[in-house]
Amino acid sequence: MQISINANRCEPSPMRKFHPLAVAAKKEGKKIYHLNIGQPDLPTPPAFYEAVHDFCDRTLEYEASPGRPILIDAVKNYYKELGVSLEDNDILITTGGSEALLFTCLSILDPYTEVIIPEPYYPNYTTFVHAAGGVIRALPTNPWEGYRYANRERIESLITPNTRAIMITNPGNPTGVVLDQKEMRMIADIAKEHNLFLICDEVYREFCYDDKFGVPTMAHFRDIDENLVIIDSVSKRFSACGARVGCVVTRNKQLQAALLKFCQSRLAVATVDQVGAAALYSVDHEFFRICKEEYRRRRDTVVTKLRQIPGVVVEEPMGAFYVMASLPVDNADKFQRWLLEKFSDRGDTVMFAPGAPFYETPGKGINEVRIAYVLKQEDLERAMDVLAKGISLYQRQVMNVKAHAVD
Amino acid sequence: MQISINANRCEPSPMRKFHPLAVAAKKEGKKIYHLNIGQPDLPTPPAFYEAVHDFCDRTLEYEASPGRPILIDAVKNYYKELGVSLEDNDILITTGGSEALLFTCLSILDPYTEVIIPEPYYPNYTTFVHAAGGVIRALPTNPWEGYRYANRERIESLITPNTRAIMITNPGNPTGVVLDQKEMRMIADIAKEHNLFLICDEVYREFCYDDKFGVPTMAHFRDIDENLVIIDSVSKRFSACGARVGCVVTRNKQLQAALLKFCQSRLAVATVDQVGAAALYSVDHEFFRICKEEYRRRRDTVVTKLRQIPGVVVEEPMGAFYVMASLPVDNADKFQRWLLEKFSDRGDTVMFAPGAPFYETPGKGINEVRIAYVLKQEDLERAMDVLAKGISLYQRQVMNVKAHAVD
Repeated sequence: MQISINANRCEPSPMRKFHPLAVAAKKEGKKIYHLNIGQPDLPTPPAFYEAVHDFCDRTLEYEASPGRPILIDAVKNYYKELGVSLEDNDILITTGGSEALLFTCLSILDPYTEVIIPEPYYPNYTTFVHAAGGVIRALPTNPWEGYRYANRERIESLITPNTRAIMITNPGNPTGVVLDQKEMRMIADIAKEHNLFLICDEVYREFCYDDKFGVPTMAHFRDIDENLVIIDSVSKRFSACGARVGCVVTRNKQLQAALLKFCQSRLAVATVDQVGAAALYSVDHEFFRICKEEYRRRRDTVVTKLRQIPGVVVEEPMGAFYVMASLPVDNADKFQRWLLEKFSDRGDTVMFAPGAPFYETPGKGINEVRIAYVLKQEDLERAMDVLAKGISLYQRQVMNVKAHAVD
Repeated sequence: MQISINANRCEPSPMRKFHPLAVAAKKEGKKIYHLNIGQPDLPTPPAFYEAVHDFCDRTLEYEASPGRPILIDAVKNYYKELGVSLEDNDILITTGGSEALLFTCLSILDPYTEVIIPEPYYPNYTTFVHAAGGVIRALPTNPWEGYRYANRERIESLITPNTRAIMITNPGNPTGVVLDQKEMRMIADIAKEHNLFLICDEVYREFCYDDKFGVPTMAHFRDIDENLVIIDSVSKRFSACGARVGCVVTRNKQLQAALLKFCQSRLAVATVDQVGAAALYSVDHEFFRICKEEYRRRRDTVVTKLRQIPGVVVEEPMGAFYVMASLPVDNADKFQRWLLEKFSDRGDTVMFAPGAPFYETPGKGINEVRIAYVLKQEDLERAMDVLAKGISLYQRQVMNVKAHAVD
């Protein structure tokens, strides 16, 4: 028996690969500050639970494959408030943004076709693209440029006859980069001129820490209706990751038909979660404001603390709740392992996501990390202090002892 | 922009393609008896809602990618009661049996590799196999043989160097065929001898109407640990389709690792549904007995009524809640359309799933239908009477007028 080539081309999740070591560290009594997973800690609005607790159909039936009508309506109204007018058929409810991404890749990629993605990028994109047999063409960026990628020349240099799509996360995971209007327009133009799909993962849309960005969405550009695929989700917007409710939004009819076939094949998205998600969309906008303020404070804390650590390279991220940084260690993966197995500061240690798996290009990101600032202020401060002490001790104990490993 | 070849190789769901016509018919005031979708009508055990209504975590978080530990435990205990001993790692919780099937196909199929599937088969299998670039090699059966497929010679004649798996549904959808112990052993032997994966979709396991079958599962055969992949779900077992909770069970470590990568890429299965599903596994076995008795009575009604319609070919199905039958019409698809658009008996009409999409072989199943007996006794009787009247009128009005269409 053989495992498929495409499965072999995928990697285990870098955010979750240290889970067994974390379990072992906890068994030893260590406290771990989790900065490795983009799991918001803010409370889920009670509207979710209220709706779910009210739901009690005699038989828990399959929902319609494209989604529960009240949820499709709720999504439509949400977009309307952003100034984006959608038809019912433009929206397909999915099991999280993840399923939206997988079905999009299966719908538009053939083996060996290419997707241009700025690197570093969300590592699960690799699985979605590779599941469909596709190839990622990485658009390079650098920590010292704050990972900004909106460069027409660099993007166009990657386009080949096999390019099918440009895929971006805006605001960005793992970098926190937010495109301004001009940059969005420029990327839209490239997609249009070169007849490419433009897959915009906008699940962090509300998390922009400079008001000039507003609530950014490519869906305003009506001249790229045929190109645009928006990936959306309630996970981050409403602190409701466990609901697994997202959607894919496109006005391209052919793509809608292809996506619908995959949606039909899995029958439906979970019924009670759609009920809860629809209720989430009735949450007052004050909720977004409070969340944004909280995350902005946290970002400031993390960036300030990181800048106090000698040798760290970090630019202030403008959105999402991640910061990507280059650490003064030889290898972030090895450093993470050491933090879990050998280190603690008064019983505490810290987890982040090592950087290399966020890159397609071999050798890049080796000493970079993604930090998710999803802990409350005081925990975040403590976590960053633990990280600073960890770096210092690791430099002395590991990097000096094994000097040949430093380069 | 192009749609992928594999998406183009998939078809819209035959169970759901008449949905727009059904909506139109309902708007005209027609009552439709739905025999087209395998959506059980029996009540979901209250344990599901009780657990879900008790759940109120402050933040609705991602669950672990392999599944919520209490649910994995519940599944393990359920199998233990069947006499099957499993380790935690042998079980991956999935978003319904559908996701288990998709991830299995993505994990073991390369483009142009082949899966042997007895036809007629559940049409969504096409989407799962084609999504991975695979090819279905159909194992032919016939209505007059009751669609039985366990024939060593026929199966082995389809094996090529590109065959990766044999895929069966036992008890069968759409045919209701149940394998006896000898047949199960024979198919296990073929998989073992030819080094093939054996994908057994056993989501209807509890629905066997002859006690000689017990609660059949291939998982008893420990000599095929490396070959076997069990697809499982709470949907039919507990009348909980809308929960979208299933699992994939395999003891093949390499396959476990491949499947886990896909599970990690979509992060988790919905949290509250896993909480509810875990509670379902505590339901008393009396629940299964009552369901089984109810479906057995319904099967008897449907088969008796079908046999009273002149020209219908039908064998008594032994399991699941479907019967596949050959109708005395020229084209079941056309007949379904006519039933929705042109026909009603005192305001009533009926929907089934036309047979052709259950076949890979072109031209087969044209006048066959799958009937899901998921309505209460009196509705089922009425539905079968409406079907009989529909056939009779269609034969006179459509088939006689357009005599050239009859063949």
